[in-house]
Amino acid sequence: MSLEEALARCATETEALLDRLLPPHGFPASRITEAMRYAALGAGKRLRPFLVVESAALFGVPREQALRAGAALECVHCYSLVHDDLPAMDDDDMRRGRPTAHRAFDEATAILAGDALLTYAFDILSSPETHSSPEVRLTLVSRLARAAGAAGMVSGQMLDIEAEASATQALEAITTIQTLKTGALFRFACEAGAVMGGADPDALLRYASKIGLAFQIADDILDIESTPEALGKATQKDRGKGKATFVDVLGLTAAKAQADTLVAEAISSLAPYGDRAATLNSVAQFIVTRRK
Amino acid sequence: MSLEEALARCATETEALLDRLLPPHGFPASRITEAMRYAALGAGKRLRPFLVVESAALFGVPREQALRAGAALECVHCYSLVHDDLPAMDDDDMRRGRPTAHRAFDEATAILAGDALLTYAFDILSSPETHSSPEVRLTLVSRLARAAGAAGMVSGQMLDIEAEASATQALEAITTIQTLKTGALFRFACEAGAVMGGADPDALLRYASKIGLAFQIADDILDIESTPEALGKATQKDRGKGKATFVDVLGLTAAKAQADTLVAEAISSLAPYGDRAATLNSVAQFIVTRRK
Repeated sequence: MSLEEALARCATETEALLDRLLPPHGFPASRITEAMRYAALGAGKRLRPFLVVESAALFGVPREQALRAGAALECVHCYSLVHDDLPAMDDDDMRRGRPTAHRAFDEATAILAGDALLTYAFDILSSPETHSSPEVRLTLVSRLARAAGAAGMVSGQMLDIEAEASATQALEAITTIQTLKTGALFRFACEAGAVMGGADPDALLRYASKIGLAFQIADDILDIESTPEALGKATQKDRGKGKATFVDVLGLTAAKAQADTLVAEAISSLAPYGDRAATLNSVAQFIVTRRK
Repeated sequence: MSLEEALARCATETEALLDRLLPPHGFPASRITEAMRYAALGAGKRLRPFLVVESAALFGVPREQALRAGAALECVHCYSLVHDDLPAMDDDDMRRGRPTAHRAFDEATAILAGDALLTYAFDILSSPETHSSPEVRLTLVSRLARAAGAAGMVSGQMLDIEAEASATQALEAITTIQTLKTGALFRFACEAGAVMGGADPDALLRYASKIGLAFQIADDILDIESTPEALGKATQKDRGKGKATFVDVLGLTAAKAQADTLVAEAISSLAPYGDRAATLNSVAQFIVTRRK
């Protein structure tokens, strides 16, 4: 199976699982369930669930369990997109080729749907269907809370907004922001696989840190080289706001070289797993060669 | 110890615990930690933590464990106030006698601080310090997620906003909204005590449903009979928006009678606990006699 086929298979499985797990249409408040389903279903590469599934596969974790942890993580990812797109934050109208949640519904509904998706992630993780060991489920809850909260993603978004105001140009500052904002959920994805498999997560965490940064650099490059039509969202918004990207600080050529270096380092982190890490190695390469 | 002294003692302990648990000043993004601490510290009756502590006391649960579950619940309660106060929702400028979080900081910071407080609640509950049994901690995580999410509080707020648009006047509709919006966290508070004590939560859940509604009716009465200075927030806002309250639907006299009936039913629910429920019985009465 090619990487593209494996990604598509995981995306289809994640979509079906989220469709089954999310509150049904109309219950208990129809508007909130419609908005949650709008934000979480029907689009997205499902890259984070794929990282959970492939990391878990290294340790023989049952695929249906890894998919549940991936679905919980995807709820958090989708909530973060809904809140980040709000007028008070990045003020985006388009996401994944469709109107953003606050455009399709309204701001109040988008805030609440994001809140509900975040909350639901912890419900999914705490269920015995996610893993037979209560200790493992608690570790997943705790690690996701840290990755998503003030020690991780939320602070990344806060620093990103503050950087916009100060138009900071330092590579170190951008790296810190993106390590929190994008990196924290990538690290949780790979760590979750090891936690579910009762394995040491260190090598996977090193891999995840590298591909998280490579992902963001690739995003900044696509933002320059691609079009709103291809990406399904506005491009060059950061530039319009005077906010520095990796491309601004490094230049396009050096940014591409840096992304390639990070991919090589990510792959090297997984050397202990040998050929079993072939798919994860391919993902690392995909992250900098993707067209959207 | 009088009820007032017991409430004050629990409020002081909850404040100290939250001060210790919340991310320290300046880490990792100073603005987000300041806003979290602003929203969660320095005010509030801490009524929900008190319900956790007193319900847990029925079953001999160590007080420091109950206080942790109460602190997690208070993080969720404070997040809900921050998000409900936003311009896109209830658009309130004052809360607990101080500017609301989006007024003291800005909208983006308030949204993110609310997100971080919600997320942190699950980190607190998943820690072994909250309870020695992993199964109990997972039950707390799952029940709080359901109380706070699309099956509970979030849908209550969604329906409340929708009711504003439709100016619905039906008692049944208002009861449904408040059972979700206010009641779900009251029920979790009392259920958590039983869960931590390995006891059947049914009687406490009946008690909590009754006092949750009585609390909201009392709020609607205070909204008419008190002042912004005494309450620390704007009054009669619902009326200005054409949104019906219990007082609008029932009239003031019948609303007071209904609150008293609910208190009597709440106290009767706890009959199996005899004198051990004396404090919880006093809380039920306090809920309708409080001045703010």
